[in-house]
Order: sequence, then C-alpha cells, then structure tokens
Amino acid sequence: MAGKRVAVIGASGYGGLQTLRLLQGHPDLTVTFLGGERSSGRRWSELVPFLPLEDDLVVRSPDPEAIAAAADLAVLSLPNGLAAGLVPELLQRGVKVVDLSADYRYRSLAQWQEVYAAEARQVARRDDDLCREAVYGLVEVAEARIREARLVAAPGCFPTASLLALLPFLEQGLIETNGIVIDAKTGTSGGGRAAKETLLLAEAAEAVAPYGVVGHRHTSEIEQLAGQAAGQAIQLQFTPHLMPMVRGLLATVYGRLRDPGLTAEDCTTLLKASYRHSPTVQVLPVGVYPSTKWVRNTNRCLLSVQVDPRTGQLIVMSAIDNLIKGQAGQGMQCLNLLCGLEAGTGLPLLPFYP
Amino acid sequence: MAGKRVAVIGASGYGGLQTLRLLQGHPDLTVTFLGGERSSGRRWSELVPFLPLEDDLVVRSPDPEAIAAAADLAVLSLPNGLAAGLVPELLQRGVKVVDLSADYRYRSLAQWQEVYAAEARQVARRDDDLCREAVYGLVEVAEARIREARLVAAPGCFPTASLLALLPFLEQGLIETNGIVIDAKTGTSGGGRAAKETLLLAEAAEAVAPYGVVGHRHTSEIEQLAGQAAGQAIQLQFTPHLMPMVRGLLATVYGRLRDPGLTAEDCTTLLKASYRHSPTVQVLPVGVYPSTKWVRNTNRCLLSVQVDPRTGQLIVMSAIDNLIKGQAGQGMQCLNLLCGLEAGTGLPLLPFYP
Amino acid sequence: MAGKRVAVIGASGYGGLQTLRLLQGHPDLTVTFLGGERSSGRRWSELVPFLPLEDDLVVRSPDPEAIAAAADLAVLSLPNGLAAGLVPELLQRGVKVVDLSADYRYRSLAQWQEVYAAEARQVARRDDDLCREAVYGLVEVAEARIREARLVAAPGCFPTASLLALLPFLEQGLIETNGIVIDAKTGTSGGGRAAKETLLLAEAAEAVAPYGVVGHRHTSEIEQLAGQAAGQAIQLQFTPHLMPMVRGLLATVYGRLRDPGLTAEDCTTLLKASYRHSPTVQVLPVGVYPSTKWVRNTNRCLLSVQVDPRTGQLIVMSAIDNLIKGQAGQGMQCLNLLCGLEAGTGLPLLPFYP
Amino acid sequence: MAGKRVAVIGASGYGGLQTLRLLQGHPDLTVTFLGGERSSGRRWSELVPFLPLEDDLVVRSPDPEAIAAAADLAVLSLPNGLAAGLVPELLQRGVKVVDLSADYRYRSLAQWQEVYAAEARQVARRDDDLCREAVYGLVEVAEARIREARLVAAPGCFPTASLLALLPFLEQGLIETNGIVIDAKTGTSGGGRAAKETLLLAEAAEAVAPYGVVGHRHTSEIEQLAGQAAGQAIQLQFTPHLMPMVRGLLATVYGRLRDPGLTAEDCTTLLKASYRHSPTVQVLPVGVYPSTKWVRNTNRCLLSVQVDPRTGQLIVMSAIDNLIKGQAGQGMQCLNLLCGLEAGTGLPLLPFYP
Repeated sequence: MAGKRVAVIGASGYGGLQTLRLLQGHPDLTVTFLGGERSSGRRWSELVPFLPLEDDLVVRSPDPEAIAAAADLAVLSLPNGLAAGLVPELLQRGVKVVDLSADYRYRSLAQWQEVYAAEARQVARRDDDLCREAVYGLVEVAEARIREARLVAAPGCFPTASLLALLPFLEQGLIETNGIVIDAKTGTSGGGRAAKETLLLAEAAEAVAPYGVVGHRHTSEIEQLAGQAAGQAIQLQFTPHLMPMVRGLLATVYGRLRDPGLTAEDCTTLLKASYRHSPTVQVLPVGVYPSTKWVRNTNRCLLSVQVDPRTGQLIVMSAIDNLIKGQAGQGMQCLNLLCGLEAGTGLPLLPFYP
Repeated sequence: MAGKRVAVIGASGYGGLQTLRLLQGHPDLTVTFLGGERSSGRRWSELVPFLPLEDDLVVRSPDPEAIAAAADLAVLSLPNGLAAGLVPELLQRGVKVVDLSADYRYRSLAQWQEVYAAEARQVARRDDDLCREAVYGLVEVAEARIREARLVAAPGCFPTASLLALLPFLEQGLIETNGIVIDAKTGTSGGGRAAKETLLLAEAAEAVAPYGVVGHRHTSEIEQLAGQAAGQAIQLQFTPHLMPMVRGLLATVYGRLRDPGLTAEDCTTLLKASYRHSPTVQVLPVGVYPSTKWVRNTNRCLLSVQVDPRTGQLIVMSAIDNLIKGQAGQGMQCLNLLCGLEAGTGLPLLPFYP
Repeated sequence: MAGKRVAVIGASGYGGLQTLRLLQGHPDLTVTFLGGERSSGRRWSELVPFLPLEDDLVVRSPDPEAIAAAADLAVLSLPNGLAAGLVPELLQRGVKVVDLSADYRYRSLAQWQEVYAAEARQVARRDDDLCREAVYGLVEVAEARIREARLVAAPGCFPTASLLALLPFLEQGLIETNGIVIDAKTGTSGGGRAAKETLLLAEAAEAVAPYGVVGHRHTSEIEQLAGQAAGQAIQLQFTPHLMPMVRGLLATVYGRLRDPGLTAEDCTTLLKASYRHSPTVQVLPVGVYPSTKWVRNTNRCLLSVQVDPRTGQLIVMSAIDNLIKGQAGQGMQCLNLLCGLEAGTGLPLLPFYP
Repeated sequence: MAGKRVAVIGASGYGGLQTLRLLQGHPDLTVTFLGGERSSGRRWSELVPFLPLEDDLVVRSPDPEAIAAAADLAVLSLPNGLAAGLVPELLQRGVKVVDLSADYRYRSLAQWQEVYAAEARQVARRDDDLCREAVYGLVEVAEARIREARLVAAPGCFPTASLLALLPFLEQGLIETNGIVIDAKTGTSGGGRAAKETLLLAEAAEAVAPYGVVGHRHTSEIEQLAGQAAGQAIQLQFTPHLMPMVRGLLATVYGRLRDPGLTAEDCTTLLKASYRHSPTVQVLPVGVYPSTKWVRNTNRCLLSVQVDPRTGQLIVMSAIDNLIKGQAGQGMQCLNLLCGLEAGTGLPLLPFYP
C-alpha cells in the first residue's frame, strides 16, 4: 500500500464516523490512527460493532507525537476550541491537518474569539498566524489554494449550502448585496451525537422550529465569504430551522435581482457555467426542485433556481447531506487535495434512495 | 338538545375527519348529517372504526334537499370547485355554510377562475354574487362580519399562519410593502388523504423539499388580505416546503422595518396588543421560538418576533396545526359565530405533546 | 369549586406533563400543587410556555407537609425508588396517592428489591406493609378495590397492553400457560424526557431494535398478574422493541389454544363479554387490526384477535398510547375512583388522527 | 469492457432502482437495457434526475428479442405474475434470469397458483417445468446450485431475514418444529412505490400496526424452506407489522429448545460456525441486539441470539435492509454467481449511519 496514512481524531462522533465510513475502500488513503479521549483504550469493533473497519484499531488518546508517528495527515472532528490545542503541534511535526471545527474558519483569531466567545473563554489561543494561514476548504472556490495548504478549515454545513447557492450571483454582481435572506432547514444529526433533550426523538419528531434566529454563528462565516465574493462587506439574514429527520440540509436563498429582465433559465445557465468544473455541484432544470433525499449519503450539492418576475426576487434552493458535503465529505475532498489526488476520489455521488 | 344541527360534507377526508373530531363533545352543536359520494350508504363505524361518533350515522350522498332537512348549517370539505355546485342550493334552503375549500375565498369569481384555472375548466360557475357576499373567515380579523354572514370561506392553512404574522405590521405601516418573503414549512397531511406517490412515507420521510416555488395558489390569497390591510396592492414571495411530518405548519416571515429603531420587544408588545382579544393567538416572549409541536391538536397560533438591528429585518415566526387552526378548527370558529356562540367554543388550546 | 385538590409531583417529566394535560378541564379535580426538585421555584408558564395551566403555579420542592396542606390527593411521577420516600409521609397526613412508578407494583418489598436491585441499593425501604396494602391499578380488573384504596400503583405501559390482551383467556383457561410469547413495540417517549444517546432522533429514527431481551423488568410485573388470573405461576417470554415514533405501544401476544376448535369469532365474542363494562377497552371486528395511531391521545385500549387453525395459535393484538392508558390516563382513572367518580371522567376516547 | 451486460426490467420501481444503484460502479457488470412499460421511451436522466447512471439509457418496452440482443442477463423486478410472461422467452434466447418476484419461488406451479390465487387468475401459466428448475436464491444456502442455474428466484424480504435466523437450528434439530413464532417488522418501502393510502406518510408515520395476520403469503415461502431444512413439514406463525420508517426489516424469531441446557453462548457459536463462509451474515456477541439502522444500505444480515433458561425459549433476532439483502442486493449476489463471480462483488457491507 503506497498511499498516505490518515489519523481520525474524534472518531466516534458523527463527523468522525462519517470520515471513517468514507475512508473505507478509499483507493489511496488508509486509516492508521483513531483518536478519542472518552473511548481511549477500546477496540473499534467493541465500540461500534456495526461499522467494521478494514483495520480494527484500538482508539488512542490524541497525543501529537503518537499521531505524527502513525500518520501523514489528520482529520480533526472535535468540539469547537479543542482543535486549536492540537493543530500547532501536528503541523510542527509535519502532519497536515483538515479541521472540521470552526477553529480556523476565520481569517483572524480575534474574529473567532468574538463569534465563539464562550469557547474562547475556555482555551488560551495564540495562533493568529495559523488563522491567517489556514485555507477555508470550500473546494469549489479554493481548490488550488487547498492543494498547497498545510491546514484546511472545512466549512460548516449551513455555509456550504448557502455559499454554493449565493457566490456565483455575488461574484457577478447580479443581486443586491443587502436584503439577502437565507432560510435554512437541517436534520438533527447536525446537532451531534451527544445527548441533548431538544434532539430526543420524542421532542424533535413531528416538530419544526426555528432556532438561533438573528446571530447564529454561521452567519458570520457566510458573510465573510459572501463579502469576499462581492468585493464589499455583506450583512444578511440567516435563519436555521430544525427538521424532524436525521440527515439533510436545505437552504432557500432569496435575493433581489439587479436586472429584472433575468429569467430562471438565464440564472440556471449561469450557475451551470460557474460549476462546470465541479462534479459535486449539480444544477437542476428550471422547475425541478431539490429534495434533501436526493443527496443523502452523497458528496453532492443540488441547486435549483427560480425567479419571480413580479417581485424581482431570485430564489436559489440548495440541498446537501449535512454530514457529507456539509462536513466529512468536504473534509475528505480537502484531504484528497492535500495528497495530490482528485478532490472527489472515493466520494459517493449516488444517493441512498428511498 | 336545544343546539344547532350540523352537516359535514366530505366527511372522510382529513378536513371532514377533523371537523367531526372537534364537534364531538361540543356543548351546542350536533352532527346530524354525514355527506360523501365515495362512501355513501356506509355506516360511519364501519368506515372509520377507530373514531366512534356519538351518533353512528350512515354516510349519504350530499343532496341539498336532504341536507336542508337534516341540518341548520353545513361544513363543506370538498376538492376545489365542488363546493360551488352545492352552496347556492344550500343557501337557498336556509342552510348557512362554512366552506373549507378555496371556492369563495376571492372577492370575484373571475379571480378564482384565474387562480384555479384547472378546476374552473371542469365546472360552470355563475355565482359571482356569492363570491362577493362570502366573508373570508379569518376570525381574528373579521369576527363581526362572520357573525352576520350566511356563507363563510375558511382561509387556507398557509394564509392563516402568514396573515396572522403579517397583518398587524402592515396595518400599522411598520414594514415595507415590497420585499416581503414568506418561507413556509408544512406537514404532509396538508396534501390530503388521497394517495399520491410524493406523499408516501417512503418518499416524504427523511426529506425536505420546496414545491410550488413562485406562483403557488396561496400567494394570491395572502396578497389579497395583505393588500387590504396595507391599503395598497402587495406582491410578495411565498415559498412552501414539504416537511417529513404529519401535521404542523410554520411560516417564517421576513419584512424590512421602516423604523430601524424598533426592537423585538417593541414589536412583541405591538403584536400582543393587536391580538389582545384573540385567545387563539399567543405571542411568545422575545427569544422563545415556536415549535409546530406546541400547537398540535390545538386551534392556537403561536407567534414570535425577532429583529436584526444590523439588517433592519423583522422576522415573524408563526406556528399552527395545519388541520385545526389551518382548516377545521378555523371552520368551527366560524360555525360557532354563525350560531351566535363564542368563536372558541369547544376548541382545544392545549397541545398534544410530546 | 367543590371538587378535590390534586398535587402532581414530578411535573415536568412526561408522566407529569400528561397528567397535567389531562387534568385541565377536568370537571371535579383541580391541580393545586406542582412538585419538582430540579425546577423548584420556577413558575410553570416560564418552564413550559406552550402548555398553559388554568392556575399558573410555582413549582415547589415536594415536601410532604406542604403537599398535605395544599392537596387531598397526589399523583407521583418520579424515577423508581423515589416515590417510596414520599408515600408513607403522605398517607400519614391523609393524602391518597396514585404512584406511576414501579415502587408499589409488587405484593412484597422483597420482590421489588429483587427486580429493581439497582434502585434498591440507593434507598432504604421498610414499607413492606404498604407494598401489601397498595392496589395494582389496572382498572378493568380491580375497579372495586381501587375505589377503597389509599395507595394505588398504576401499572407499567407494557403490562397494561399485555394483560388486557391475556387476562380473559387465562382466567377462563383457554390457553396453555406455558409457551406464551409477548412481542411488544413501543415509541421512544416510554424512555422518558431525560437525554439519552439511544433516544436521540438521529439514532432512533429509521431504526427498529429489540432491547432488554430476556429479563426486562416488566416481565415479572406481567407474570405476577397473569399468574393470579390463571391460578398458577406463569413464566412467559416478553421482548420489547424500540420503534421510530414518539407515542404508542403495540403488544402482539401469542398463546396456544387448549381447544383447537375455537375460532377468531369465538374469541372476539369472549373478549367483548369480558370487557362489556369497560368503556376504555374496544374489541375490533375479526380481520381489523389495531394501529397505535388509532389510540393516540386516548385512554383507550384496542384489541383484536386472530386464530390460526393450522397451528392452534391464538394471536391477540393490543394497542395503547403508552403515556395515557399506559401511564397518566390510567393514573387518572385511579384518581377518579379514589374520589368516588366514574373511572373515565375527563378522559379522552377519540384519537388524535392522523 | 470485458464484463457481462445486464438488463434491468421494471427499472423505476424500488427493486429496479436499488438494482441500478448497486450496479453502478460494479467492476464486471454493465447495465445495457432498461425495461419499463409506463416510462418506455423516456430517457433515464429525465425520469430520475437525481440518480445519474453511467450510461444515460432510454427506457424501453421489455421485448424479449430486444433484451436478448442487448444483454446477457436480466434482473426482473415486476409485479407478481408478470415475470412468468417473460422468463420462458428470455431463457429460450440464452438470457439468464434473476427474478425478484414470487413467480418462481415455489417448487410447483400449483403451489404458486394456490398462494398467489388472485394473480394466477390474471395470467395463464404453463411453466411448471421452470418452477421445478428455478433455484431459490438464498445464497447462504444454495450458492453452488445458483452458480449452475439459468433461472434464480430471489427470496422475499421476510423469508430472507426469517430463514437466516431459523435454518441452522432446524437443520441441526435443536428446536421443536411446532410452536415457532416469527414476529416481523418492516419499513414501508416494502410496499413498493405505487401510491396507496395506507402507505402515505400522514397515515403510516407515528403508527405501528400488524397486517396480514395468519395467512400472509410469505408464510408458505418460509415454511417450504424451513421444512426442507428440518426434513419434515413445518407450520409456523408469521406476523408482519408495518413500521413508521422507510427501510429496514427485523424478524424476532421464537422457538423452543429441545435441549434446555443450551445457552445463548452455545447458540451464538453454532450460528457463527454455520455462517463462517458467508460474509453477508454477521453474528453479534450475546447481549448486543441488532438495529435495522446498522444494516441500512448494506447487503448484510445481522443476527443475535438470546436464550431464556426459565422458559426454554430461543430468541433469534435478524435485521436486514429490506430492499438490499431483502431484495436487490440478494438479486445481485445471484447475478454475480451466474457470472462466475464472487457472490459479494460490488455489494456494500458498511451501513449508512446515522
């Protein structure tokens, strides 16, 4: 096996589990280290008997020295604030890192400390240089830079779906930069595997509700990238809603067209052109609207555009699997690029349906 | 029993079933006629063994003469276009009508024919006078007029949730009349009881998807009432989404505040004042967001307001049970008013939870 | 208000919540005390804003003196082992008790200590006399004795559904006493409101699995009553399964007929006769099988019988709402009886459907 | 491409869709013909835009001549009774067939006509010889014979889960042949993609119910194979239940041990030995019970055994994905064998989780 060796840290949370699922059968990457504090010392097959790995490793405490001895690259799937304790040590030892948390998604430490104030109070970070060095891992936008990186911050699930819908229109100046509304809907697996009352089936089934209205943390992440695309600061409305389902994320994005003569067909053509080199993004014909079910278990983002000529509104609908293109799949695209492989290597594009 | 006698036409669809559930135990109204074409001649207890009625009637073909002989009032829960074939005959015979379909929701026949073009081609209607006479049965807005009516058109589920969120702000001129976005989420029971592939559990579970984007029929119904409240024509964006759950409807409504100094607390106070005489509408404290689960099996509408001072957006969240406050419960409020009773008589306000 | 005053202890768990829902609108009972350790000192409307009570009480620590001052009866909905700390004190002060836990379901303390060994290690109980005094609150079986009791132990959800299916056949000696199999299916609300990973929507949705196979605690509770009915000790197989839904419990009960000539019609007739005085039990016609959906939000048990003449097996299917007839509704039947009311006073028999 | 060419007939039903999903990326098999009456003439990408195939074929009417020109093998996923109209024609033209329907699951035409009487009235079959020739495609039992066959009848979903649990115990005479109870639970996708009221999300969600109690057609299929294993005719109890989920099937199988001294560990060892050459069957450690979620999107069957020493009952729990190991995956194992490949070629063993 001439491929690269990968460490997965935080292996038994949903991000880690999906990363492991995706890495099984990968032609060039092998999992050689499983890191986790809680389950340290336990053999994987005892811990998760239903998800047999090619190598039935023992989970180990995520010590940087041990990781560096075992792996060339590491995927970190840890609660916000914890990756920053590990990343400098790993980079120093030559281990490239894909981080699935928010720790390196902002271009300055100060901004992270502002948005993630609660976490920032728990940890002492001094890695502003790494915040500036890290590449935001939205592959469709930054493929070349990811390829050269040491540290990639994989985007959050909401930003991924929202930005893939918005960026082409902002880059080409086709919509007003104010008044943008993103109404997003996510399955409960986005809340992670730790037990919380609100995510119990008895509470979350047969229920739809908004949360984090005004000020959800992903707002700033979306605005940072949207502003870069538009070439000016952008403030927009982002409202997440919890759906009674496990997986899937739909962002319905509203913006006002600057040219009221643009049709849904025009906008569809434009989107297709923007993503002609991105096999992960599929633009649907006008009038076909994406279901989150059509992307389950895939690394695909489905987009569809509609225009209301009466109101001048552009509506872009964007569906992803929150744990794949919204998390572990995107992380694996980055991992592939760090290894000099095609971004999509080993990633599924056919949905688990029905 | 000195109360009024009620006929329920279309008894075995979801609208009819809910009406029957709600009428059981009503202190002043008694079901004396069950109408249905498909199940005509069958005894109720055979048809729906799990929902025993006080009087185990035989379902009969909805003949106006027979209905008038048996009942003082009728609730019609029929596919669009069919109520119009029955209503004139019933009114002529002195039977007051609450219609749950869209047939009398518009102030002119022409408008109905435009919006419901497919149905209009199937039926020959000449009852423009009744379209003008009918009262739109949004009780919180038109209670006095409903009380005097012969014919009430109960609003659709999406308009109910949307209008209760919007109307106070439009009436008082607090938001811009353009740029309004209504992003709505509904359970699958809104699609009715007839078998459709897209509403199968295997298709609709673990899936969220938009439908009827730009041009959904309820848009015109919302715009008609919104325009009346604002005193000017309004065109807005309405996007429904199908949720993987049976019941419940959430409308997330976005509008731009004219006065950027207004706070969420101000708007909450205003909403509370607007609905101080409406026990069906409950305004939540700022920061508490409504779940559709909190209104299941109730005739209640839960509202919550948030304001983003950065963007100047007002966000109003509105949750109802699509089959109760969004359909049969609202119909029963109208029925109560037609009988001189309190609107809320016999209607549940405590949710089925969890 | 000339009725009785009721304390509900453990008000914010599912058992307490259902009890409170059911007591709203009760013609003769009023909630005058809300007890809870965790939420002590908080006003109900803050704690559960979506379930407004007639009296918006402040939750208080469950002190026996305070309870006795405020209430004539108490419903205890506490984790196993904790009721026993409160019950003797309440009885001493003249407060009658309906306990929803397992603490008084066995006829001797020793048996409880054997089955609930883990809980027994945490608490020092010396109330063997109360174990013997307590009446097992299966109303269909023990109505007269409950009426005279001071302390009623409401049955568990699985025993309720299973025993209502089995007892008539055991009492009349129609089935073999060995080889009985109860295959039961329950919604996740049976696991309570406390956060557990296995009950997360992301884990429990789209999943069916057995648990507690051989030796589930409810086995002994079922066997105790089954043995009393049969007049001999019975050992049977009870296997619970977790269903991907909130509420509802179905027990499919298998037993071998002693007389192979008995038909499904014969057995249906017999069941109807057994329950002719029990409005909560409805026996369906042969060939109509109960859905848990048909009993949601009701205090009803639906039974259906089938017989396989080839194998001589009797199959009895029994559906209840695990939180109503399986818990709080049954408790309220007992409460009614303790107050000299009809058992069914204030209890719903029409399902929340669809 | 030196591999074999495969026709999939009935491509847009769930069986066909799963077969197509599984065949994408298969190293040795290529789909060269899509057959379907309803969607004949339409291009696949229009019909199912979210499931892109390597070759975007046009669906064609299933004419035997055309199939034989395009393919070496055919998978038939048609309603019961229809495969029999096509199979003789295909075999005659040298096309080997895997049939996913019940048409060739019985060893005589007469037996099929008895069990599938309704279908038998619609079609004139005279292919008793083919019924005798066809091999029942339970790979774990008949691998060598499938390898030599022309026509394979893939087992139903319930028989697959039930027989894998039962056969080793029957073959070795460890359980009584009478009194066996199979209590089975299935997701709604087992009912197919055609719209039926009972399978609507609004009806089937939040509901568990038995159906086909005594006399479900799969009973005879299970008994046929169970009898062969036991060396004597067997009559058993099979009760299916509909679960509120899309996919997954759990069979809980109860039988009485002949030797009361056998432990769960003994039986687990025995099962493991029986399936030591079957990578699709995984036997779990004693005390770990299978969830249907652990086999979603896999061709795996998870088994677990428990024994109750008090009652002498053996309980075997068996979980599969009803559309993969219970249908299309099993069909593809057979297809592989017909082509001289390893049975598991191209089949997934890692679950879609969570």
